[in-house]
Amino acid sequence: MRILLVGASGTVGRAVAEALAPSHELIRAGRHSGDLQVDVTDLASVERMYEAAGPLDAVITTTGHVHFGELADITPAQFNLGLQDKLMGQVNIVLAGIKRLRDGGSFTLTSGITADEPIRLGTNATTVNAAIEGFVRAAATELPRGLRINAVSATLLTESLDAYGSYFPGFEAVPGARVAQVYRRSVEGVGTGRVYTIWQ
Amino acid sequence: MRILLVGASGTVGRAVAEALAPSHELIRAGRHSGDLQVDVTDLASVERMYEAAGPLDAVITTTGHVHFGELADITPAQFNLGLQDKLMGQVNIVLAGIKRLRDGGSFTLTSGITADEPIRLGTNATTVNAAIEGFVRAAATELPRGLRINAVSATLLTESLDAYGSYFPGFEAVPGARVAQVYRRSVEGVGTGRVYTIWQ
Repeated sequence: MRILLVGASGTVGRAVAEALAPSHELIRAGRHSGDLQVDVTDLASVERMYEAAGPLDAVITTTGHVHFGELADITPAQFNLGLQDKLMGQVNIVLAGIKRLRDGGSFTLTSGITADEPIRLGTNATTVNAAIEGFVRAAATELPRGLRINAVSATLLTESLDAYGSYFPGFEAVPGARVAQVYRRSVEGVGTGRVYTIWQ
Repeated sequence: MRILLVGASGTVGRAVAEALAPSHELIRAGRHSGDLQVDVTDLASVERMYEAAGPLDAVITTTGHVHFGELADITPAQFNLGLQDKLMGQVNIVLAGIKRLRDGGSFTLTSGITADEPIRLGTNATTVNAAIEGFVRAAATELPRGLRINAVSATLLTESLDAYGSYFPGFEAVPGARVAQVYRRSVEGVGTGRVYTIWQ
């Protein structure tokens, strides 16, 4: 398959790229690196990315920032940042991609375990990740031409333990290589409207 | 209790007001009507509403619009409208209300059955309602001073059958009076971080 991976330089993205590269043609996109540069919050930029990418069988997004901070101190602008970046960024990629993917193609988005398990300072993350899973659940009912859409909800990656481990007390980290297999299940499998979890 | 009801003129809001008015002091807020006018998408307007409302034991929000339309035709701007109105509107009310509610006070937000059951043209609704439920789940873990937060997820109201019944085939509508009791359970009960459902 020809697969567009948006967020290829991130921790999850690198693991996904490594798992898929041996058996697929990967086009890597990122904010500042990769084969194609894209600002996912800007629909015109997303459209240009698709134009440059050519025909695609699958799109994987492992991109997006959310705001971390005490609930009582979060400003609406900070809260909105997560909505615009991680949620609308992935939504933009789907909205612009519907008419471009080949019949039977798939979108695989990234939510996260915080959708179900709130963590300290993570209200924005839980909100955004829950929204992404809602989007996938509903979008799957409307996609044309056999297109599929799923999300992957992973726990903390072993590779991110040093940076984020303290926010996930008692959460078992999993290696990126295992998380990447869940993305593969979405891309090469038959499911749609699913949230594929890897929580331990 | 002194209860601020934002969205008091809507179908759900009117039912909630009728159920709570006999035993509580209600302050009704709305975009164009009620005791206080408010634009929930504007934090300054929300702050002025709280200033005018005075001390509060509970805030109930039954407000918010989402975009209905075919997934393939939705523009990012249309999608964002639901995020800004129904989601950020209610988030703004919570963020601004944390420091204003009396100890042990509560927020009760409104999501909807489409969070779990997608309906035709309803991808934005499912996304927004799922986000609201995520917000409630996480915010409950951070609220200070015994404050509580819940959401109510109702099916279609009997009173809305004429207007929206065709979007909910095979969904059992319930009278607003029954839905209102679920809001009462949130306000007068002890739960927090909960999504109280009334789906039939």
